[in-house]
Amino acid sequence: MVAEHVATDPRPANDLPETMRAAVMFGPGDIRVVDKPVPRPGPGEVLVKVSVCGMCGTDLKIYDGHFPGTPPYGTYTPGHEWAGTVVEVGETVDEVETGDRVCIEAHHGCGRCENCMAGQYTACLNYGDVAKGHKASGMTVDGGFAEYAIHHVAALSKMPDNVSDLDAVLITTAGTGLFGIDMIGGYLLGKDVVIFGPGPVGLMTVQAAKQLGARRVILVGTRASRLAKGKDLGADHVIDANETDPVAEIRRLTGEGADVVIESSGNVRTPQQCVESVRRGGTILVVAFYPEPVTIDLAAVVRQGVQLHTTRGEGGNNVRRALALAEMGRLRGEELVTHEFPLEDIAEALRVVRERDGDPLKAVIRL
Amino acid sequence: MVAEHVATDPRPANDLPETMRAAVMFGPGDIRVVDKPVPRPGPGEVLVKVSVCGMCGTDLKIYDGHFPGTPPYGTYTPGHEWAGTVVEVGETVDEVETGDRVCIEAHHGCGRCENCMAGQYTACLNYGDVAKGHKASGMTVDGGFAEYAIHHVAALSKMPDNVSDLDAVLITTAGTGLFGIDMIGGYLLGKDVVIFGPGPVGLMTVQAAKQLGARRVILVGTRASRLAKGKDLGADHVIDANETDPVAEIRRLTGEGADVVIESSGNVRTPQQCVESVRRGGTILVVAFYPEPVTIDLAAVVRQGVQLHTTRGEGGNNVRRALALAEMGRLRGEELVTHEFPLEDIAEALRVVRERDGDPLKAVIRL
Amino acid sequence: MVAEHVATDPRPANDLPETMRAAVMFGPGDIRVVDKPVPRPGPGEVLVKVSVCGMCGTDLKIYDGHFPGTPPYGTYTPGHEWAGTVVEVGETVDEVETGDRVCIEAHHGCGRCENCMAGQYTACLNYGDVAKGHKASGMTVDGGFAEYAIHHVAALSKMPDNVSDLDAVLITTAGTGLFGIDMIGGYLLGKDVVIFGPGPVGLMTVQAAKQLGARRVILVGTRASRLAKGKDLGADHVIDANETDPVAEIRRLTGEGADVVIESSGNVRTPQQCVESVRRGGTILVVAFYPEPVTIDLAAVVRQGVQLHTTRGEGGNNVRRALALAEMGRLRGEELVTHEFPLEDIAEALRVVRERDGDPLKAVIRL
Amino acid sequence: MVAEHVATDPRPANDLPETMRAAVMFGPGDIRVVDKPVPRPGPGEVLVKVSVCGMCGTDLKIYDGHFPGTPPYGTYTPGHEWAGTVVEVGETVDEVETGDRVCIEAHHGCGRCENCMAGQYTACLNYGDVAKGHKASGMTVDGGFAEYAIHHVAALSKMPDNVSDLDAVLITTAGTGLFGIDMIGGYLLGKDVVIFGPGPVGLMTVQAAKQLGARRVILVGTRASRLAKGKDLGADHVIDANETDPVAEIRRLTGEGADVVIESSGNVRTPQQCVESVRRGGTILVVAFYPEPVTIDLAAVVRQGVQLHTTRGEGGNNVRRALALAEMGRLRGEELVTHEFPLEDIAEALRVVRERDGDPLKAVIRL
Repeated sequence: MVAEHVATDPRPANDLPETMRAAVMFGPGDIRVVDKPVPRPGPGEVLVKVSVCGMCGTDLKIYDGHFPGTPPYGTYTPGHEWAGTVVEVGETVDEVETGDRVCIEAHHGCGRCENCMAGQYTACLNYGDVAKGHKASGMTVDGGFAEYAIHHVAALSKMPDNVSDLDAVLITTAGTGLFGIDMIGGYLLGKDVVIFGPGPVGLMTVQAAKQLGARRVILVGTRASRLAKGKDLGADHVIDANETDPVAEIRRLTGEGADVVIESSGNVRTPQQCVESVRRGGTILVVAFYPEPVTIDLAAVVRQGVQLHTTRGEGGNNVRRALALAEMGRLRGEELVTHEFPLEDIAEALRVVRERDGDPLKAVIRL
Repeated sequence: MVAEHVATDPRPANDLPETMRAAVMFGPGDIRVVDKPVPRPGPGEVLVKVSVCGMCGTDLKIYDGHFPGTPPYGTYTPGHEWAGTVVEVGETVDEVETGDRVCIEAHHGCGRCENCMAGQYTACLNYGDVAKGHKASGMTVDGGFAEYAIHHVAALSKMPDNVSDLDAVLITTAGTGLFGIDMIGGYLLGKDVVIFGPGPVGLMTVQAAKQLGARRVILVGTRASRLAKGKDLGADHVIDANETDPVAEIRRLTGEGADVVIESSGNVRTPQQCVESVRRGGTILVVAFYPEPVTIDLAAVVRQGVQLHTTRGEGGNNVRRALALAEMGRLRGEELVTHEFPLEDIAEALRVVRERDGDPLKAVIRL
Repeated sequence: MVAEHVATDPRPANDLPETMRAAVMFGPGDIRVVDKPVPRPGPGEVLVKVSVCGMCGTDLKIYDGHFPGTPPYGTYTPGHEWAGTVVEVGETVDEVETGDRVCIEAHHGCGRCENCMAGQYTACLNYGDVAKGHKASGMTVDGGFAEYAIHHVAALSKMPDNVSDLDAVLITTAGTGLFGIDMIGGYLLGKDVVIFGPGPVGLMTVQAAKQLGARRVILVGTRASRLAKGKDLGADHVIDANETDPVAEIRRLTGEGADVVIESSGNVRTPQQCVESVRRGGTILVVAFYPEPVTIDLAAVVRQGVQLHTTRGEGGNNVRRALALAEMGRLRGEELVTHEFPLEDIAEALRVVRERDGDPLKAVIRL
Repeated sequence: MVAEHVATDPRPANDLPETMRAAVMFGPGDIRVVDKPVPRPGPGEVLVKVSVCGMCGTDLKIYDGHFPGTPPYGTYTPGHEWAGTVVEVGETVDEVETGDRVCIEAHHGCGRCENCMAGQYTACLNYGDVAKGHKASGMTVDGGFAEYAIHHVAALSKMPDNVSDLDAVLITTAGTGLFGIDMIGGYLLGKDVVIFGPGPVGLMTVQAAKQLGARRVILVGTRASRLAKGKDLGADHVIDANETDPVAEIRRLTGEGADVVIESSGNVRTPQQCVESVRRGGTILVVAFYPEPVTIDLAAVVRQGVQLHTTRGEGGNNVRRALALAEMGRLRGEELVTHEFPLEDIAEALRVVRERDGDPLKAVIRL
């Protein structure tokens, strides 16, 4: 038994290499894969051998140097949608152990500001203050475009066996939509839900809304392939906004307008369409970012008694909720991954995503 | 056009018979099926040709004369879980029309007390005041153990074609569990949920909780047949409390205790088991009634920071939510009906339910 | 005793005159005071001898013919901020009796649509459908610019002796702000609250926020007289936006930004100032209307995890809450009334309000 | 600049003595004041020179050895209602600085369990696990019956100048009542509120409820002196339960029953009185502990659609909210302190509290 214990020592730190391959930002538009020391977990932290790291629009902003608060060029490794296997745990960690497969939520709050104490850790008032404990993996600290990465155990979730590492990338994405749904009450049962934007967030949210019992899920987009995917994933109706006026069609389908309208497109014209599609007393949820200011008929929002909610990131333990749904086989992630690249090709991967070369839905780096 | 209008007249009141067969309470334990005038709908009301009316524990209390606020003996027709087809609509009603199949929620609030105005219409402060508009079908006004029944349109829901009249009886029951779930936030996704009591409410709630994404649904009861039914309907674990200590087993399964514990058994010992089964910071929901006072370790409830919620009836539009789930094929009702009786045999039906003769799960009167 | 009973007969309907003086809209910009039959209350309704009726921006829209869904010209009497004394009650009314002084909330919901049943009666889906029971006094049915007016008892509140009829006009206004505060959770204790717009709604909300325990109330406006009034009513800081950049000053005072920002100005540039003034994870409440679309940095709203709520009217029983505060002497209304006019001068009153002649804060018609 | 820097060095740790006087538990009923090393703050922690530490019922349980999870006898210093002046801050602390006067909330959550991440840090799932960061001052780690004490900065609040150290003891107590009020929605405006138990929690809650706009606050107790104090602090009605049936009197005063009933007495008969005093659809809040199980008519709770909430400790940032109210002069604390003892007399102080010798309301240790 002793021998066996030695063989399965849960902290075989000595076997870890001293250096690893990691993507590092050296300046705007300048990302290189270099050798870098393997980080070691501090108290409450966990070292993970990364197997896969997804890429999203935020990574393009980072690549262009338009994202505030990142670590210094020359050291900074981005990547905030990653999963892998625990290889070392820091002091006090017993929530996971070596060998566990884990996925992440990007944000770990400071735990001591007024927002964190109220459970709003994605709105941490110490955002970017690493000394005080805030960490946004791949944004304010090093992330997952590397062979190894560290995160606080509170931001990790143990993955069930039947959820793959590729699924895990989309689990983080699903956490974004579910956090938004959580914010608006979480009880979609019997509601008519419109989702603008069939990107990864939109398509995971289509599934989540349907699983939570939305009566009709109506997906609005402009690319036929994505709308077809949305239909396959459970949307009851899809609307091609290039061919049909989405507002008119939503009102035709729902009568009074939709109970809940979720905007994940990031198109500056969509928020006004949300205002026109939602029913009196209904809810708009925005989980997108916009390149410029947005114009809406705010008087109509007030006149209709509509509430506009927003969420950022995957707060409220919603990655764990997404995992529970995936474990039950009710959330499909892996099939949204259209492109895989080795770490060494990360610059090419970024180009493909930016240029929509080959219509990527979700591109990932495989490690 | 005129001819056509005549042909499709939505209010063919003239074809209605003047009298109908109806069960009437003549005193405690004295129910008889007699001829009675067919009622006519007032403004906002709808006349329904009843096809089926379920029977539940409250009907036994009514039969025994232990239910307060009922109409006078000699006129009073009980029955509060009914469905059927619209045959006449009162003034201003355009939400349903003749020929629509509908099911009900029992309570219609006065719409003018402080509770109704805040959406708490099942806690109407004018309970029993018919003149002010409150109506509890089959409890404070005549109900569905009759060929025809009337209800306010706000308490009716149009049934989709793929939901049967037998399903509808259980839809009302499901509304009870869903109203409770609504009260505790409605967002069960990823939660461990325990349900005590595999009666109709418990078994509909097993399904609802699972459909809403509960990670594990644990059902506790004492009859093997009902636990087997619960397992068939989606319970992840069932516990026979006659064979296994449910508290110990729940804690073994969940570690910290369950996130949510729902009590639908009505057994006076169960509330304390709920206290011992729920995790720190968790929620207890009680949707049952008790024949005598209940003793619990209230200090433990406070020490654990546990909230205890209750609901009565099927408020918060939850019958419509249940219908939406049934329409999607995600809520099975009809198969819980174990016994059907013609109206003329209502006394025998009440005996069977009281004596549990033949282990009835849900008995209904077929009209 | 009999004689006394006769003397205090609670329904002395016979003593009512058959006609009354009332302002009637005959077309856009054409309001005249004419003789009109005194209305009689139906079931659930109450006839009130009006003593005072306030005037607000909505009345200008009505006067100009820009408000949808009003009764026909030639019959329509506007006025939705009124108070007076009960002179006759309709069937079933026992909540108030003849001689009671009452004030109103404008909206009475249908009580049967999904929104009303959920307590959202100011977002009634049957808005304007009088037959189904919806009534917006002075907007979709006759209002209070007349000697007598009718409203549903649910929209009336009995006034305590120490609240004057002039106070009552502002009680309705306070209900608007309190409904908004209710919508955002109602628990302002210890929060920093910014209020844009020192009109009647803003000034009543200054008082309400302070009474509810807001730590600092910061009022932003452009007229010195109104800011001084706000300071007198409890604002901890006032900012003249013509002299000081309000965003910079709010951030200087609060550090992180305000917890809650309430917009009651209706100025199209203010919503963006709200976005820039609120702290991460904070709340914006809009209780104003805008003459044209509004442009905001929605990306910042999302990035900061800010929620934007709106309310319309005085829902959620908040007029009664306002009355309770006034009864305790903690809400001052009467002193906001700067102008009083007799009914016959209503056109002049409308001119004064529109042209801000004499800097009116709240103008009322005295009956 | 260097000289000045030295003169105002914010961490004059060298001036700190090495040892201090501290009360230490040596066994059940055995508390002694001994010399002990002055503790030093770790990262995120703050060392405070204690000026005052209140005593409450929990301290008696601790004294008797009936409180689970305390540090070992021979080292353990209780005391969880303390205030004082910052003398040293640990790494990363910039929220407070040397010289600041601070008061506390007892609990600091781990910040990494599911409950802490959801804002429920008083229900921390790692309760008692110091290594993971949970600390309940004076309960699971050393507290304030000593010259110096340490706490995490997140559990400290800077005190305004006009709030005294004696006030501060009651600020913590007020935090308990406010956390409860927060849990039930925080919006008491216009509500009728009953409070059972005129102890320190009850009397602080009387003030808080009144300040938040409760229409009528009704206080129920058995000691005339405390009821008089309650009346002085703002209770609208007081009921001596030895002379008047509180349920009958509450129903006489309120008609329908109270909107909110708060139980802070800890008497096992009171919860049933709460059930009988609350109105249909109302709320019961329990912020007390009981020496034995409690019997209630749970069927009535369900039939009335009543919700029963509990809170433990002073979560949800409510100590800061209480401080804001005190800063405005709207919360009186100091005058509830009836007995002061020097540290050396702590055993005598505990005797006085237990035996109610001299009718102590709040006894404190002055340091």
